[in-house]
Amino acid sequence: MDHYSLAIRVAAEVVGTAILVLFGNGAVAGVSLKGTKTFHTEWTVIAAAYGFGVTIPSLMIGPISGAHINPAMTIAQATLGLFPWSEVLSYILAQCAGATIGQMLVYIAYLPFYQRTQDADAIFGTFATFDAAESKVNYFANEFIGTMALGLCAMACLSSSWGQENRAVAILVVGLVIWGLIYALGGPTGPCLNPARDLMPRLLHTILPIEHKGSSRWAEAWIPVVAPTLGAICGVALFTAFA
Amino acid sequence: MDHYSLAIRVAAEVVGTAILVLFGNGAVAGVSLKGTKTFHTEWTVIAAAYGFGVTIPSLMIGPISGAHINPAMTIAQATLGLFPWSEVLSYILAQCAGATIGQMLVYIAYLPFYQRTQDADAIFGTFATFDAAESKVNYFANEFIGTMALGLCAMACLSSSWGQENRAVAILVVGLVIWGLIYALGGPTGPCLNPARDLMPRLLHTILPIEHKGSSRWAEAWIPVVAPTLGAICGVALFTAFA
Amino acid sequence: MDHYSLAIRVAAEVVGTAILVLFGNGAVAGVSLKGTKTFHTEWTVIAAAYGFGVTIPSLMIGPISGAHINPAMTIAQATLGLFPWSEVLSYILAQCAGATIGQMLVYIAYLPFYQRTQDADAIFGTFATFDAAESKVNYFANEFIGTMALGLCAMACLSSSWGQENRAVAILVVGLVIWGLIYALGGPTGPCLNPARDLMPRLLHTILPIEHKGSSRWAEAWIPVVAPTLGAICGVALFTAFA
Amino acid sequence: MDHYSLAIRVAAEVVGTAILVLFGNGAVAGVSLKGTKTFHTEWTVIAAAYGFGVTIPSLMIGPISGAHINPAMTIAQATLGLFPWSEVLSYILAQCAGATIGQMLVYIAYLPFYQRTQDADAIFGTFATFDAAESKVNYFANEFIGTMALGLCAMACLSSSWGQENRAVAILVVGLVIWGLIYALGGPTGPCLNPARDLMPRLLHTILPIEHKGSSRWAEAWIPVVAPTLGAICGVALFTAFA
Repeated sequence: MDHYSLAIRVAAEVVGTAILVLFGNGAVAGVSLKGTKTFHTEWTVIAAAYGFGVTIPSLMIGPISGAHINPAMTIAQATLGLFPWSEVLSYILAQCAGATIGQMLVYIAYLPFYQRTQDADAIFGTFATFDAAESKVNYFANEFIGTMALGLCAMACLSSSWGQENRAVAILVVGLVIWGLIYALGGPTGPCLNPARDLMPRLLHTILPIEHKGSSRWAEAWIPVVAPTLGAICGVALFTAFA
Repeated sequence: MDHYSLAIRVAAEVVGTAILVLFGNGAVAGVSLKGTKTFHTEWTVIAAAYGFGVTIPSLMIGPISGAHINPAMTIAQATLGLFPWSEVLSYILAQCAGATIGQMLVYIAYLPFYQRTQDADAIFGTFATFDAAESKVNYFANEFIGTMALGLCAMACLSSSWGQENRAVAILVVGLVIWGLIYALGGPTGPCLNPARDLMPRLLHTILPIEHKGSSRWAEAWIPVVAPTLGAICGVALFTAFA
Repeated sequence: MDHYSLAIRVAAEVVGTAILVLFGNGAVAGVSLKGTKTFHTEWTVIAAAYGFGVTIPSLMIGPISGAHINPAMTIAQATLGLFPWSEVLSYILAQCAGATIGQMLVYIAYLPFYQRTQDADAIFGTFATFDAAESKVNYFANEFIGTMALGLCAMACLSSSWGQENRAVAILVVGLVIWGLIYALGGPTGPCLNPARDLMPRLLHTILPIEHKGSSRWAEAWIPVVAPTLGAICGVALFTAFA
Repeated sequence: MDHYSLAIRVAAEVVGTAILVLFGNGAVAGVSLKGTKTFHTEWTVIAAAYGFGVTIPSLMIGPISGAHINPAMTIAQATLGLFPWSEVLSYILAQCAGATIGQMLVYIAYLPFYQRTQDADAIFGTFATFDAAESKVNYFANEFIGTMALGLCAMACLSSSWGQENRAVAILVVGLVIWGLIYALGGPTGPCLNPARDLMPRLLHTILPIEHKGSSRWAEAWIPVVAPTLGAICGVALFTAFA
């Protein structure tokens, strides 16, 4: 993938992460905000939307930037020597910019419904994650396990000989990893699995004027940043132990 | 694709758009009309039906006509120099004819249930779109954002090097774009994303005899025509900026 | 496909149709019969099960027998000159045998739940189809439209140049045709789309001892035989007009 | 696949089975345990999670170990001469180790919710299977039929000429077999289909401290071991009769 300039690859990460957040957090907004056509519809709406939100940009920009669209995956690949540290900051900034753009599009599309919703937890959930058990240990454990599985599965699927024969199918399966993890580990925290997808929308939750919003829960904001990053490092390390 | 005559390609667009509307609006009719076996079933019924309604004709007629099956995509590709303006009108007329045929098939299949349903909004929703917030600004914004994402993602998936290795998988992913957008942006307006899929069924809503039907909402009928068209132009323009 | 003997191809059709009925009617039984773990779960359970019930045998036996697994598709292809009339009866008998085996497996797996269920309509629905509007015209129209779409889409997907590059993906999309049609046209009749899948289970409904079963509705049993057959002929004829 | 050492292949089976149990039983835990975000969500959450839990490791480790991730498939292939008996015990131990790891990850991720849940049946269901009709005959019959279908379909899909052209798609379809069987035969028992996925979690259910847990039902624990094994042998035998 070295035939694309860093500028092009960074732009691709911006677009890819924006699409991920538009699809995933958009679906959460529809399910959570009062008066929408998808209010309180089924869990698959959210789970599949994040899955598609990974598969679609992976097909679009996978051949360009590798489609990390997740700082945890970028740092994990750099830690294991699979991505140059010199480009890590550029990728992360791009992913944060993309997440911000994606969340702004969700905010614009759902503006009248943000205004009508009085449930502060529902509003917060359309931006960032929290733990259903209100336990920081559980929050960390669930995000760590989920992103470890993501890091291992995503790398192994893309580098499997069957996956390399047909990369478009391999990225379909990587989307199933996300979709499946939101089924398997959705119970405790969603899960987040991606520092940019949590941190930037949380910042927007603090900044944007929404009448009935509550706390942005900054005291626990380090968990969906640190836990996915450590989890992804472990997952990619497990992968390299095999490869 | 220039080895097919315009007549063949136009016929393909008629068939493809009819299938899109039969699958998608048929699913809405089942969910919305009183007494059906699928009355008030889950949102995935609608979202996946439109997704399949794009993937299936894309596999059938993609190699023939390009499977636009959407005037917004045709105009956007012409605007960016990717499709000849001389054929735009033929394509759009074909898409409108297809949408009319598809909606008539839905009407025939669900005739007894149209007769039993007394909820005018439910009847209208099986033909055309409306905004859950009753806001023209929100209606326009949601349709614009959705079709911008569609235009960008569809073009980028089909032209991605991984997508070109396996076009059948690429069009599966394009179907996921629609399926995912109906999860992500279904809350406000459905969304429509396609002028032909809204305009021709709206016309049939006005014409067809249905006892408990209400207004065809012609005052806002320009929104699902203009907003998707402008959105698709922006999306395809974003794509060409990369390609 | 002429390198397989008729005996092998007939055996393949038996197995394929048994799998279709086991998956599809099994899912209906789980959703309909009292006391199951899947009692009254979502419509996707039924729709996707039939879709998978077409994709799976199509991958297994498609290269052997063509995976008709449906007398309507066999007759339609023979009518249009795409399949030898001399083999039609063998194929249909195989499909009827397969449907019988599949339904017997469903009956065995759900035996305690058949005994507990008192709703005669629910029991009947696990065997054969009926029209939610209790209208023979609607029954015929819905089955005709659905199988016309199936015949056209299935043939066009499998013979599309993109589908021929990757047949395994093409049969995935053919499964989406079934899955999508059960979303789009599930409201009125399910739909059936397949004479063997209706006729043989209806016969078993008459024969098998089930305490609270009601009428086997033989007066309308010709509809899910004749309407899908005529619909498939029209669909395949539409396909040949293009190909 | 003989170019990987037994040690590597065994390690692959550990990882693959852990992923299967993490995805599948994790989804059951989310749906069953009190206070989760996915409490009492739709059946597709469970069915698709097991399906993805088969497809994902199949893409990851299929080219390495064959991705049995199920003692019933290992024994069945050995019985039919498709896998060396000398490696069967190693594979089964690996699968049991993997199932234990997967279940421990589920237990850790859902710990606060295990503590809150008072329904002993709900807790047990996140570990092992049971029969909704409380009938050992039904339990055996359903598991036998399901694994027979699994053995036949999985082998036939992977060895189909269309599947061999594109193995990544073939393993997608094998995932649909699991997904579909949980729709078709979920009503009576789930179903289990895999001795390791039942036995090791059942052992953990006995060992782990969970306040409101009930019986581990050891008297029927032989059924989800023996029935899937015999079923898989019959299914693979049916396959070899064709191949």
